[in-house]
Formats: sequence, C-alpha cells, structure tokens
Amino acid sequence: MTAIDLNDIPALVRGLGENAKAAGRVLAQASTDAKNTALHVAAAALRGDAETIKVANATDMAAAEEKGLKGSFLDRLLLTDDRIEAMATGLEDIARLPDPVGDVIGSWDRPNGLQIERRRVPLGVIGVIYESRPNVTADAGALCLKAGNAVILRGGSESFHSAGEIMECLLAGLRAADLPEAAIQRIPTTDRAAVGEMLRLSEYIDVIIPRGGKSLIERVTAESKVPLFKHLEGICHVYVDGAADADKARDIVLNAKMRRTGICGSAETLLVDNAASDQLTGIVDALVEAGCEIRGDAAAQALDSRMNAATDEDWKTEYLDSIISVAMVDGVDGALAHIAANSSDHTDAIVTEDDAVAEQFLNEVDSAIVMHNASTQFADGAEFGMGAEIGISTGKMHARGPVGVEQLTSMKYVVRGDGHCRS
Amino acid sequence: MTAIDLNDIPALVRGLGENAKAAGRVLAQASTDAKNTALHVAAAALRGDAETIKVANATDMAAAEEKGLKGSFLDRLLLTDDRIEAMATGLEDIARLPDPVGDVIGSWDRPNGLQIERRRVPLGVIGVIYESRPNVTADAGALCLKAGNAVILRGGSESFHSAGEIMECLLAGLRAADLPEAAIQRIPTTDRAAVGEMLRLSEYIDVIIPRGGKSLIERVTAESKVPLFKHLEGICHVYVDGAADADKARDIVLNAKMRRTGICGSAETLLVDNAASDQLTGIVDALVEAGCEIRGDAAAQALDSRMNAATDEDWKTEYLDSIISVAMVDGVDGALAHIAANSSDHTDAIVTEDDAVAEQFLNEVDSAIVMHNASTQFADGAEFGMGAEIGISTGKMHARGPVGVEQLTSMKYVVRGDGHCRS
Repeated sequence: MTAIDLNDIPALVRGLGENAKAAGRVLAQASTDAKNTALHVAAAALRGDAETIKVANATDMAAAEEKGLKGSFLDRLLLTDDRIEAMATGLEDIARLPDPVGDVIGSWDRPNGLQIERRRVPLGVIGVIYESRPNVTADAGALCLKAGNAVILRGGSESFHSAGEIMECLLAGLRAADLPEAAIQRIPTTDRAAVGEMLRLSEYIDVIIPRGGKSLIERVTAESKVPLFKHLEGICHVYVDGAADADKARDIVLNAKMRRTGICGSAETLLVDNAASDQLTGIVDALVEAGCEIRGDAAAQALDSRMNAATDEDWKTEYLDSIISVAMVDGVDGALAHIAANSSDHTDAIVTEDDAVAEQFLNEVDSAIVMHNASTQFADGAEFGMGAEIGISTGKMHARGPVGVEQLTSMKYVVRGDGHCRS
Repeated sequence: MTAIDLNDIPALVRGLGENAKAAGRVLAQASTDAKNTALHVAAAALRGDAETIKVANATDMAAAEEKGLKGSFLDRLLLTDDRIEAMATGLEDIARLPDPVGDVIGSWDRPNGLQIERRRVPLGVIGVIYESRPNVTADAGALCLKAGNAVILRGGSESFHSAGEIMECLLAGLRAADLPEAAIQRIPTTDRAAVGEMLRLSEYIDVIIPRGGKSLIERVTAESKVPLFKHLEGICHVYVDGAADADKARDIVLNAKMRRTGICGSAETLLVDNAASDQLTGIVDALVEAGCEIRGDAAAQALDSRMNAATDEDWKTEYLDSIISVAMVDGVDGALAHIAANSSDHTDAIVTEDDAVAEQFLNEVDSAIVMHNASTQFADGAEFGMGAEIGISTGKMHARGPVGVEQLTSMKYVVRGDGHCRS
C-alpha cells in the first residue's frame, strides 16, 4: 500500500487508485465464499460495534446541528440501533445474492469447432460519491465487493466519523476473509478536492457512481473523465388513458405520488386523456385527501377547481414533495409527445385496459423503465427482484434501470480451440 | 431538417445531431422489413452506380497521390469493382442478421404478480469517426441502421468524394424504405473542426466509435465528452506453455503473427515457457521462413541466434508488421505477469495440453478475448459468428470484444401489472 499524505490530494487519490487496481485483480479471482465471509463478518462487526458507531455518529450530528443543517439532512445522517441493524441485515442480504462473477452468459460453437463463451467478470474499480448518508458506506461497499470490484468511497463530509466506524467493520470482514484491505477504501479526508481527483482518475477507476442531489450529479457529469452510472432526476409520469379502469387509475396515481414523495420513482406529473376526463375528480379527491397540492394546466383546471395553475417550469420539475402537476392530453399520442418533451428517461407508466394502446406506450416511451397498470414507485432493484441496488441508471450505456450486483460486472470472451488457425 | 451552413461548423454539427436524434426516434420503431429493404436497395444502388463511384474514387486517388501519400494508404482508399461488390454483399449480409431491436433478453414474474421484461432497444445516435477507407461508410452506416440507430459518419478527408457517392446509395435505400434520410448522415465538409464538435455533442450523440490509428484514438479519447467504443491498439500475446503440443504451438504462432500482420488481432509478442525451450527452434524456423523479423530477450537470444535484441519498448509495441518480440518466461505465472505489465487488453492466447493451466490463464488474463489453443487472428466478429462488426472494444463498459449489431443496442425494462401499488 502506498503511504498517505493528507496534504497532497492528487497523490493521495492516485495512491488509492493504484491500491484499488491491485486489489481488484485479487478480488476478480476471489471465491464466492471468501466474499460472503467478508460480508457476514462485517455484519457481525456492525452489530458488535453499534455503540462505537453511535458515538461517532453523535459527533457528526452535533457538528451538523451546529452548522444549522436542517431536518431531512439530519434525518439522513442519524444512525440508530434500528438503522445499524438494517445495515447489517443489508450486508447479509447481499451475501445471499448469487455471485455473478464467472457466470457464463452465452456460449456457442463455430462450424470450425471453436468454442466461444461469454463470461461475466468484474468491472474493476468503482468510485462512489455520495452525500452524508453513512449507511451508503456499507451498502455500496458490499455491492461492489460482491461483484468482485474494488471500490473507493467518498461520502459527504458531515458523515465522516460515522462512515469511518462503518469502514472499520467492513475492513474487519475483509481481513477475516483474507481479502485485500484495499478492496474497500475511502477517501480519508473531507477535502472536496478529492472528488475532482477521482473524476480525473480514468487510469484506475472504471466507473463512478454519484448518488445525491441534482447539483452533485451536474457537477460530476460536467467534470468526469470516468464513465458514470447515474440519473440526474426522476420526472416520472403516470398517463391515465381513456380506456383506464377508474379504480386502478386512482389507486396507482395516489400510490405513485404519495407513498413516498422523496424517492426518484415517485410520480411528478399526471397526464389524463381527454377521453378519461370523468376520472379526474375521483383522482383529485384521493390526492387532496392525502394532502397533495395539485397544479393543473388550463384544461385540467377547467375540469376541477381544486388546482393551482401549472407553469411551463412545472412539467420539468422533480418536486420530491406532496405536489403533482396535471395536464390533459389527447390520447396516447398526446401523452407520448408530453413525455418526449419533458422526460428525464427514468420511469413512466400507463393505466389502461387497452393492450394495444399499452403496447404502443411501452414501445415508444424512451425511458429506462416503462410500466403498464403499475405504480412508478416499483422502480427499485429490490422490487424488481434484483436484490439491493446502488442506484438507478438512466444512461443507455452498459447499465440501464436498477444497478444491482449483476450490472456492476463486465464480461470477457473465452475461446477454446484445438490448434485452430485462421484460414 | 435544419439548413446547413458549411462556414459555421458548430451549428452544422449540432444540426446534424438534432436531425439524427429525431430520426433515431423513428428508427427505433422501424420494422425489420423496412430496415432490410433499405439495405437491399442500397446494395443494388452500389452495384448500379459502380462506375460513378469509381469516377469519384479516381478524383480522391489522384489528389492523394499528388499529396504524396504512400502505398498502404492508397490501397485502403482505392475502390475496385471487386471492392464495390464486397460492399454490396456486406450490406446484404447485414440484412440477413437477426434484428436485435425488441428482443426480450430476460423476463421474470414477481411474487406480487408484476411481470418484468428486459427488452433490447437502440442506443440512439452513433458517431463514427474513421480514416480514409470509403467502404467503412457502407459498413458502419448499415450496422448502425440494422440496430435501429441513427448515425453520423465522419470519414477521412481524402475519401470525401468516394464516400459521398456511397452515401447517395445508402440514401436511396432509406428513401425506398420510407425511412428518414437523417438516419444516415455524414459530415458534409472535410473541416477537421467537425471532429471536435462531434466529440462535444453528448446532448445528441450517445456513443462515438473511432476507427483508425493510435494517434486518432488518442485524440478522440482525450477530447471526447461522449462515451466511446474503442481499442487503442492490439498488443496480442501467444504463450507457449511447457505442456504445449509442439505442432499446434508452431502453427498457431505462425498464423497469429503472419496470416495478416496489419490487423489488430495479429500477435506481437511470443512468450515461451522455459519448460518449452525445446520448442523454440521449430517456431523460429517457421517464422524466419515466412519472412518475420524476431526480437528476443537475452534468454531467447541465448537459445536461438536468429534474433535481434528486444528492448523494453518492444514489449509495448504494436508492430502491425512482420516483426515479433519473444520473451522466455517461467510457466503460466511468468506469462501472466508479462501480460499484466504489457497488455492492451485485446486478445491473448495460451497453447497447452494442460487444461488446468489453460483455465488459470483464461481466468486471470484481463483481456476482452482470451483463447486456448487457437490463433489470436480469430479475434473478429465474423469469426465469432456475430456477423459484421464495427470494431473491437477493449473497454469494460457496455460492449467488450467484437462490436456487432447486438452490441449497438441498449435495453429498457417493461413492467406489466394489474393495478399494482407498492406497499
């Protein structure tokens, strides 16, 4: 391991990169048992060190409060016994996921007898840049490890002490499994310059996963020389078609908007077919009763007076709050046009009993996830049955939709012959 | 279509990007029949316009000769009746490939009844930057079209007139199939500034594929804000293990090096196990007889006097010529260490009758393609049975190895429910 000098950030980050690359080569060959052992021991360490973790977290919390940081920020930073237990359980869940490394994902023989196999291999080194949510330290470290990748973590500075104690538990796991400690590293300083260095380290880091608000994602996108798995925002639409079942439409809109308003899969815009205008009142009843503010276009307002006026900006706004914008559209083509103009390519849903119309919507909406008669809040790796996810990708390259263990791998071709020469 | 002003390169390239994005949306929904019709009509047009194409090519050839360009450059630029026929046949071969768009590449049901499907969709807009090889215009345009992508082509300036005539044939195909002409566009100027503009156009171009020499790839890699499918070079190794069959070893090394020396899958370095030193003379006999220069390390030179001395630079040199470097190594671990230090992550082969040693090599060499008892010259999409390829990718993201039609797609998740809300 390269020695660390906290005053020379470029050298520091570069050293972490070198260590990660070397560790990645070892991890790529590590057995499933070794990786799972590391995860189980780390889970036990989290439980055993819960008091130490809470003491470190209290330090972080006190500093954050002193800085005047507010409710939702503090809530994400806080670690309780329940949350520490959830982290430990999360590691055990990841241990139970199938190991994708080495999976043969395709194989065929050529007429000349060559045998060709496509085999999953780790991506290599992953950088994760996240805000002050200490539990991401455990989740992201564990997912990358399970997929055979080395990881460099850079969490928000306000969670520095909490994340440090969590790191100790992960390292205990690596040591117990005789895996290199550089498999999971974190930036050992809160200096923001380290983020910039990570974004330039394409020689060592294969992919960077930024998790956080729009401003973080925008900065990372603008600066990164390393490929990203990311989504900028989730402006998810629910389109209620003229052939929608009214009960399903009402329940799905209410769930898609209000189950949890702060997640990327929550709906931000409701599109109602003019042919379904008689369903609007029932949907608005449910939303208003749940405490949702409604901002409608002129046509929607004319149908229901309980709406404020939507501006053009509303169609491109991710509220992450109890607010929904509503536009009346002419059938599925109107919905497709609105979505094409305003989509963030995340998740969009249609409610209809007309399968042909549903198929058109599913085909033509160019988003990572398209849904028929289901709530957009299902946009989640666990809900997809993929286990834990490190995020949702709206990019078209490599990984699209939930990024789970399998998406954290690449592949190689393995070719077997018997002295084959090419003619 | 946006109007074109050849004096405003940024606006020009941006306009092509806008047009391509709009065309891509149409292409994503285009039927297999329509795409194949376009390819067949374009093939017929190439045959019908062969004389016109040769006249344009003569203009390009004369200008290139006047510039003093040399043999291999002129050879790549030249179009003959045979080469035009090969282009036409190539388009028909691509028409015969399965259409990947819409393929369901995974599907499962969740316990709550949600049906989840992973479906192939086009990547969107692809930029191809290549040297003065006019036939790439047809190949790249056709492959991108078949995968439902719009493409922006930027060929070498010396092939400008030839490529222009080939473009006319592709456009005739698009018109006959009622597909948007902006499905296949080319930069209508030889101004090199257009390349820089393409590399910045991440808003419209989803991936750029550079094809050409090391200097082009290095420039594109340094400047691009758009993801790339690329390989920088192919420093392919053949390792002859102590347990190699001598005939297979000799034949494979000879084929891997000398079948065609100018392709990326040709071998540049031979690694010989010290335990196989008795095989060296036979291999050197075959190479020398074929006219290959041999540069050995001290140990190899001591075993066979027909070698020049290899310098450190030789291990990292892609000769693309009748030259091979030779190093003696200690078993498979020695070979793995040499490859890890010098590999370009392209294609590496082991010759051995020991399956356990082969498996170690196949597992641990971190290249896009690893081979056992087969020539590295098989590193090719057609030889893999994938049909035509647009190149070989050594990146770990999205596409690795031959980039064929299937690799030019992304995917989306299609989720079907029956009023499903998330609890």
